Amino acid sequence: MKKFSEEVEVSGHLVDSLILTKIFDIIMDLGGEFEVLEINIGKKKTDESYAKLLVQGDSKKHLEEILDNVYREGATASIKKEVRLEPAPKNMVMPDNFYSTTNNRTQIFHKNKWIQVQNMMMDKCIRVKGNKAACITPREVRKGDLIVVGESGIKITPPKRPREGANVFEFMGSSSSSERPTQHIAKKVAQDIYETKQRGGKIVLVGGPGIVHTGAADSIAELIRNGFINAVLAGNALAVHDVEYATLKTSLGMYVHDVKLAVRGHRNHMAAINSVFKAGSIPNMVKSKKLKSGILYECVKNKVPFVLAGSLRDDGPLPDVITDVVDAQKEYKKVLEDADMVIMIATMLHSIAVGNMIPADVKVVVIDINQPTVTKLIDRGTWQALGVVTDVGAFLPMISEEIKNLKNHTR
Amino acid sequence: MKKFSEEVEVSGHLVDSLILTKIFDIIMDLGGEFEVLEINIGKKKTDESYAKLLVQGDSKKHLEEILDNVYREGATASIKKEVRLEPAPKNMVMPDNFYSTTNNRTQIFHKNKWIQVQNMMMDKCIRVKGNKAACITPREVRKGDLIVVGESGIKITPPKRPREGANVFEFMGSSSSSERPTQHIAKKVAQDIYETKQRGGKIVLVGGPGIVHTGAADSIAELIRNGFINAVLAGNALAVHDVEYATLKTSLGMYVHDVKLAVRGHRNHMAAINSVFKAGSIPNMVKSKKLKSGILYECVKNKVPFVLAGSLRDDGPLPDVITDVVDAQKEYKKVLEDADMVIMIATMLHSIAVGNMIPADVKVVVIDINQPTVTKLIDRGTWQALGVVTDVGAFLPMISEEIKNLKNHTR
Amino acid sequence: MKKFSEEVEVSGHLVDSLILTKIFDIIMDLGGEFEVLEINIGKKKTDESYAKLLVQGDSKKHLEEILDNVYREGATASIKKEVRLEPAPKNMVMPDNFYSTTNNRTQIFHKNKWIQVQNMMMDKCIRVKGNKAACITPREVRKGDLIVVGESGIKITPPKRPREGANVFEFMGSSSSSERPTQHIAKKVAQDIYETKQRGGKIVLVGGPGIVHTGAADSIAELIRNGFINAVLAGNALAVHDVEYATLKTSLGMYVHDVKLAVRGHRNHMAAINSVFKAGSIPNMVKSKKLKSGILYECVKNKVPFVLAGSLRDDGPLPDVITDVVDAQKEYKKVLEDADMVIMIATMLHSIAVGNMIPADVKVVVIDINQPTVTKLIDRGTWQALGVVTDVGAFLPMISEEIKNLKNHTR
Amino acid sequence: MKKFSEEVEVSGHLVDSLILTKIFDIIMDLGGEFEVLEINIGKKKTDESYAKLLVQGDSKKHLEEILDNVYREGATASIKKEVRLEPAPKNMVMPDNFYSTTNNRTQIFHKNKWIQVQNMMMDKCIRVKGNKAACITPREVRKGDLIVVGESGIKITPPKRPREGANVFEFMGSSSSSERPTQHIAKKVAQDIYETKQRGGKIVLVGGPGIVHTGAADSIAELIRNGFINAVLAGNALAVHDVEYATLKTSLGMYVHDVKLAVRGHRNHMAAINSVFKAGSIPNMVKSKKLKSGILYECVKNKVPFVLAGSLRDDGPLPDVITDVVDAQKEYKKVLEDADMVIMIATMLHSIAVGNMIPADVKVVVIDINQPTVTKLIDRGTWQALGVVTDVGAFLPMISEEIKNLKNHTR
Repeated sequence: MKKFSEEVEVSGHLVDSLILTKIFDIIMDLGGEFEVLEINIGKKKTDESYAKLLVQGDSKKHLEEILDNVYREGATASIKKEVRLEPAPKNMVMPDNFYSTTNNRTQIFHKNKWIQVQNMMMDKCIRVKGNKAACITPREVRKGDLIVVGESGIKITPPKRPREGANVFEFMGSSSSSERPTQHIAKKVAQDIYETKQRGGKIVLVGGPGIVHTGAADSIAELIRNGFINAVLAGNALAVHDVEYATLKTSLGMYVHDVKLAVRGHRNHMAAINSVFKAGSIPNMVKSKKLKSGILYECVKNKVPFVLAGSLRDDGPLPDVITDVVDAQKEYKKVLEDADMVIMIATMLHSIAVGNMIPADVKVVVIDINQPTVTKLIDRGTWQALGVVTDVGAFLPMISEEIKNLKNHTR
Repeated sequence: MKKFSEEVEVSGHLVDSLILTKIFDIIMDLGGEFEVLEINIGKKKTDESYAKLLVQGDSKKHLEEILDNVYREGATASIKKEVRLEPAPKNMVMPDNFYSTTNNRTQIFHKNKWIQVQNMMMDKCIRVKGNKAACITPREVRKGDLIVVGESGIKITPPKRPREGANVFEFMGSSSSSERPTQHIAKKVAQDIYETKQRGGKIVLVGGPGIVHTGAADSIAELIRNGFINAVLAGNALAVHDVEYATLKTSLGMYVHDVKLAVRGHRNHMAAINSVFKAGSIPNMVKSKKLKSGILYECVKNKVPFVLAGSLRDDGPLPDVITDVVDAQKEYKKVLEDADMVIMIATMLHSIAVGNMIPADVKVVVIDINQPTVTKLIDRGTWQALGVVTDVGAFLPMISEEIKNLKNHTR
Repeated sequence: MKKFSEEVEVSGHLVDSLILTKIFDIIMDLGGEFEVLEINIGKKKTDESYAKLLVQGDSKKHLEEILDNVYREGATASIKKEVRLEPAPKNMVMPDNFYSTTNNRTQIFHKNKWIQVQNMMMDKCIRVKGNKAACITPREVRKGDLIVVGESGIKITPPKRPREGANVFEFMGSSSSSERPTQHIAKKVAQDIYETKQRGGKIVLVGGPGIVHTGAADSIAELIRNGFINAVLAGNALAVHDVEYATLKTSLGMYVHDVKLAVRGHRNHMAAINSVFKAGSIPNMVKSKKLKSGILYECVKNKVPFVLAGSLRDDGPLPDVITDVVDAQKEYKKVLEDADMVIMIATMLHSIAVGNMIPADVKVVVIDINQPTVTKLIDRGTWQALGVVTDVGAFLPMISEEIKNLKNHTR
Repeated sequence: MKKFSEEVEVSGHLVDSLILTKIFDIIMDLGGEFEVLEINIGKKKTDESYAKLLVQGDSKKHLEEILDNVYREGATASIKKEVRLEPAPKNMVMPDNFYSTTNNRTQIFHKNKWIQVQNMMMDKCIRVKGNKAACITPREVRKGDLIVVGESGIKITPPKRPREGANVFEFMGSSSSSERPTQHIAKKVAQDIYETKQRGGKIVLVGGPGIVHTGAADSIAELIRNGFINAVLAGNALAVHDVEYATLKTSLGMYVHDVKLAVRGHRNHMAAINSVFKAGSIPNMVKSKKLKSGILYECVKNKVPFVLAGSLRDDGPLPDVITDVVDAQKEYKKVLEDADMVIMIATMLHSIAVGNMIPADVKVVVIDINQPTVTKLIDRGTWQALGVVTDVGAFLPMISEEIKNLKNHTR
């Protein structure tokens, strides 16, 4: 029999959100044992469940290892323990035993009270100032900042697995597949966008240049014009392609509307970049009427903020692009605050980046023709994402059509 | 200097269809040398070109190896040589040195005359009877049949690389990509289908169950009802899914129209199979009004022949399925005779099978969400295929919509 | 409050194998409600858990729908009910309300006793003869056979989710990814093969022609020669490529060992086919010393049975191929009886076919470079499969090397 | 008959490198006509060919459009024309009609002399200073710089299509496939690396974190230690994973050598980042003996320069990362100067970025398990790339093993 043991408690949707399963798994994976001292499964689906477990390990160290991991799934010690804090030894350096965050809602037990941690993101640390706690990046750490260390005094709330109701997040797990009825999934996604807006929700679009290549730029422009998108997060490539298409009707030199190659079309990409530099910026191009349509045109016209983050492969990059990635991350995060829904389209780089910046209870739809892109996003921790493996150029027009129907129908 | 040499001639679209490039490549790859004795490039694009080369090798054997390969690209010996024939030693056994066919139009020089080989397919042999020549499979060979051996006395006509004009086959090479303007490609494909029909052409559809899963069955049913498809080649899975969807509204237990799981839906697939066995066959189900919609319903109603080939993974398989694959191949080939265009949708197995049964000048469009499927088909020799990497469930409704527009517009 | 209710019981690894989670999900998905009347979670990991639930529905029909689905996850009615049987109305036709099987171990409550169903496979039906029950395909049904109908009187045992111990099946879920340490996974798979053999287990290999293309045929031949493979299931293509490689050193005309194209190499594929027809069969070729190495050579020499199933895309097909797919399925099933482990390599068609023929507690490793292939297999119900997304041509030599190490080490 | 015409000349490997084919294609695609006035095909493979064409268009503008495109394939006007230059109107703004570069070796006819353009890259512009010409990015343009405009006075030299000899670049076209004999391709790639080094060539490695995940970091470290790599270009992720693996033996929390999850392993990634911040930089970590193995350790020890470019999705990013992408591009370009061979492994972002920075005659091998990654790189203009679709974790150990054999063999 194992000598070292400690009681832990956990409550919430223990069975249907797999919390208990994960806790049992961890204990067994780490070679520990457990006894279920008490269990109270919610009689009805809305009831929360409660369990008290005795966790056992071979040694004090072994037990602590197990507990450290069990706490990350939402369990807490039966005897409440204060969170432990240590000062950062230098700017940008966390104390050795720093607590590395998840993207779940998180509380710390500090000065005998549970405090909610602000701005939850995964793979960051928690800084405590007075009776406030916030999730910050290592680069934001300043010498002497009090940083949470260890794993005790911390309570995680894994989001409920969504199931019932009318929206798209409820008819599939986090799985993705190309073998689904596309038109009807488009309807569900459209409905979800529409209802999120009706409730006053904030929707952020994260997009790659594939939107323009595949001929779906008009659909996105329309969504923005009609107020369904609150912010656009992208990179240089989307912007350049958007301007090329808006000003020259081509994408990488191919006329989008008749799939023919333009004369000297190879240079249209660079000509688009040059036209923005000439105007000084995208908003200037709109002001001077050189840019009269497209995704970014609609952003400027409708005062929808957009942030363009630089990347190593950028041509140009445009004057509007934030070339320092740390600065770009900060601007992205500002825009993502309070987002209710994030739609990620045809860009692995920006999607994974955004996935790292949002808490697990923000709805995420990721649309891409390449299944591994979707899988990777989910593997990287954005497990709440609904993956739709489809052709963006065919799917987005369906979405925009369907939203039009919903608007007309409702009036 | 190489001692052994022979003059060869070649004519056709030598430069723009890459014929000369391939011949030069082969000679160099095999360590031979060549001199261009005469070259006459068509002054205008419609003119054919002509070249006479002196091919050189290190030994008689080496020279022959080179020539054997050069002949396969359309060159012929300057001095015409009779094709060589040998009797098959046994049923289903070809003579050792048998000529293995390509899918290009092929002639043999027999009894001092060029004879066209019938039913060209790749990777078969040529049987000569009197002054007729036909391409047959090894299993069709009968003891004593005269089979073409060696590589001389054979003339290949590689198809022109298509370039100009109005149809979809001319705006891309054989390449495929998911980064194309989907809606506009759909328009081009629709136009091509429409015009092929207007000219009285024969269009064969090859399809997999993904058509039903992705919710595109109605679009295909409509194309058949409106006379745009002359025959359907598929397997058991398409048929079962089609019947499941037509009779129970689900595909693998999921309601296609609202993406919800049916109660006991897992058994709908088997229930569909059982309903066909009960009726005896699909046409019987139509007759007895048990089957009232769908792809195969439209086939039966509109007298469009369909062939269902068996496969190892079949559930059932349905009574209508030809379970012997050699028999199924024969039936497929009958249907494919004189086809002008083949549309392959979401099935690698049937697409590659059909690719092996048709000559290189039959138009092929292959539509699949999985790029490797498209690449594999082309690698296997069906290099004329136009690949569209897209989501079938979104693309086919666009095609059928566009064809409706063309019909209305034309009237 | 819902008026119609019934008590159900379930026992087993309720929490860690997700059984309870699935039952709760189903009830809620179908709009029912439940009360947990009693729950007893195993105090220790080896203990089984037990739960008694009151399931509630809006109507008798609604309740039954819910129960029908709940039973499929391992729950049974508290009050034991006899399984219901109905005679088949015709040959190959099941009674309307037939029970469609899963691939889980299944018992029926017949004449007041629980009877184990033999030969479990998914998507089939259950025939009862005297006090024996067997899983059979619809085509095997004979008029008058007693077939299980409805969903009551049936008990499913979902396999334990594997977790602890030394073998490869325990370090990953059913997930697959290309981002894993390949060499070390190869070690684990090799160890698992080795230990399965040490225990006297039966290992069946399912393989596609990619084994030969990617240069891994020698590794497989070695595994067979050394007694690690008990049977080989494949198609015509593997066999033809194996013979081409063994007799001409090429695969599709490319020399495997130096990656150069053979002269007239395009015909090597057909020449290999012709050589088998000439000998009459593969075993004859071995006997007459025309075939002296390769996968099938080792099978013949080591009396390892192989079954080659025909497919529509076959060239030839070889005389050894079973061209009727229903017959091929029967032969495959015979070979798969009592298999402990199935290794599926580079073939979607045969892998999915085999997945449909084996119960859920047979270990399955699927090795393929194409992630969607692995995903599809798992989606089709073979959820126990361990997917390894890797290059077969690099992975199999590692496996065979590692097994050699294990043999030497153990001696 | 077309009224407007002009004579152009072209010489080089017209037929085997497809130059003439492309010129004919362009003229026809744009609706022009041509006459072949003179053609002289090299009699032997080493001879260059020469052709003089009369290009015809409907109008002066039409003719010029055609000529503009024809010039890009290597043709020049028979009557030599001076290149046209215009001053840049502003910093970072090119003149409207700027010439957009290809990645082919390029000369301009300036002051009656052909001048070689330095630092060729695709999609940039050409600046002329005195009698020097250089390829620069738009951001480097300064007001008043003389920039090449139009398309005349420019001569492109498309690289020869490689074919003969002993190295890997010669056995396949630019095509990629997963159906190749992996072990033997590994040999060829290894040989090519070895021989490039023997000749004193410069080899640059571009790599992603997949190298570490898949367990191939040791192989790369060994190649660096043994002097086969002259520079490493990567991002933050490779560096963090490399440090995590070197210091904690895990990659994303999984022990690479036994594929088990580490306790609190989720934080190892962040702990690795913190350890570098603590030391101040990677070279400092090496100096202070905190980092004692791995890819970057070998770089520091062996004075192999490495450049880490920032990206939006970076955790940290490490102090060694250049967070401004424009600066990072500059550093990458410095490292790439005079590179003879670039090996790109498991990173689309950095591979495409590097592809844009190197001329078309630098050898490129791209190794990735995801075929679309390889296809995209080639589609983006790096058409000389040899794609190897394989599992990096299995392929790189083969490469490093093979190079060891070559070293031992040679001694």
